[in-house]
Amino acid sequence: MAVRALFFDVFGTLVDWRTGILTAFDAVSARTGAPGPWEPIVDDWRRAYPPAMLAARQEPVWRNLDDLQAVTLDDVLRRHDRGLSAEDRADLVRAWRRLPAWPDTREGLIALRDRYLTATLSNGHVALMVDLLRYSDLRVDAALSAELAQSYKPDPTVYRTAMALLECSPDEAAMVAAHPDDLAAAAEVGMRTVLVRRPHEWGPDAGAAEPPDLAGLVVVDTLDELAAAPPLP
Amino acid sequence: MAVRALFFDVFGTLVDWRTGILTAFDAVSARTGAPGPWEPIVDDWRRAYPPAMLAARQEPVWRNLDDLQAVTLDDVLRRHDRGLSAEDRADLVRAWRRLPAWPDTREGLIALRDRYLTATLSNGHVALMVDLLRYSDLRVDAALSAELAQSYKPDPTVYRTAMALLECSPDEAAMVAAHPDDLAAAAEVGMRTVLVRRPHEWGPDAGAAEPPDLAGLVVVDTLDELAAAPPLP
Repeated sequence: MAVRALFFDVFGTLVDWRTGILTAFDAVSARTGAPGPWEPIVDDWRRAYPPAMLAARQEPVWRNLDDLQAVTLDDVLRRHDRGLSAEDRADLVRAWRRLPAWPDTREGLIALRDRYLTATLSNGHVALMVDLLRYSDLRVDAALSAELAQSYKPDPTVYRTAMALLECSPDEAAMVAAHPDDLAAAAEVGMRTVLVRRPHEWGPDAGAAEPPDLAGLVVVDTLDELAAAPPLP
Repeated sequence: MAVRALFFDVFGTLVDWRTGILTAFDAVSARTGAPGPWEPIVDDWRRAYPPAMLAARQEPVWRNLDDLQAVTLDDVLRRHDRGLSAEDRADLVRAWRRLPAWPDTREGLIALRDRYLTATLSNGHVALMVDLLRYSDLRVDAALSAELAQSYKPDPTVYRTAMALLECSPDEAAMVAAHPDDLAAAAEVGMRTVLVRRPHEWGPDAGAAEPPDLAGLVVVDTLDELAAAPPLP
């Protein structure tokens, strides 16, 4: 069976969270005079997010990304001995809805949509996803989210729920992500996998993630490259 | 609070199901020689759909629209003493994914999306919705469906689930539909309501539904008219 549907990770894969969040912190500086540099706080905030989601998966009531990010931001600010107003902190949480797309994302998604069903599959909830997609005028067929499984990636139920919603079997579906752990989890449920290298995700000199050792992994540098490639088998 | 999000009914409101389904039956005639006229069967099939959904809401396991339509099609064909092959019947069920949009729908949705968050809110499941939106290149921010509440309109949980997914309160949300019962149910949960007159939904001479008696109801003839109107209060 050929791949019919592409499921896209979003933070880091389609959009540049680090630049967007740094911009929001710089706006806090401009408003309040609170000094930077903010990079260590931004990176620690992002690092706090997978463990927060893992913990959230053990809780009886699902909480969305805004809730989790508000808690982890408070923690990170405390660890760095920084105080910000409730209003500034709320704005920083909302900043995850105004992240710039990577330069190839918008046109790449349009080209890929000509050949595949396209959907986000993000740990960001649906409302956040819709705002974020609108922010950079990104078009996909469906704004899907871990919210619809009331869990978080890499829980297998997230991938399975998304495939069920688009009536795809795993061999008709590919996960497209910049992150080996996301791809490994997708492969575990039988999906095809595409690594998009995003060497600037963690800053200008960070470098791209090493490709994981997954059978049939496709590696590309841009979405256009994927759109120009032969159909995924 | 001003309205921020529009939720659109789809079958009859955005797309012309009757023309699309008649086209599919005519294709059966062309393939097999089975004679028409098909209008009475098509209309009876559509009439069988609300009671089938109501019955489905009582069942412990949710079933999607394809499942329900397969059963009601068999019933309707039997009542009309007509037999069609399993393949033809399966194709007719799939025909609900290739229904032409009303002439104003595509551009109207684009114009409305400049001013509002837009989402479908259909009894068609997400996969069907995605295919149908692609068929006429219709763009909305989110392809939402009664499936996400594991129920069917007019169950209030369907409207509430959709609003929760877009983080809208009822006074920030409007239901846009050609059908008074859909709008009455939306009003019941506190949503604003917009009736789009679709006088040809049931055929060239059918006429539009009478506007329901709902406080604040807005009545338009096209989506463009709604896009050109003042913002919904």
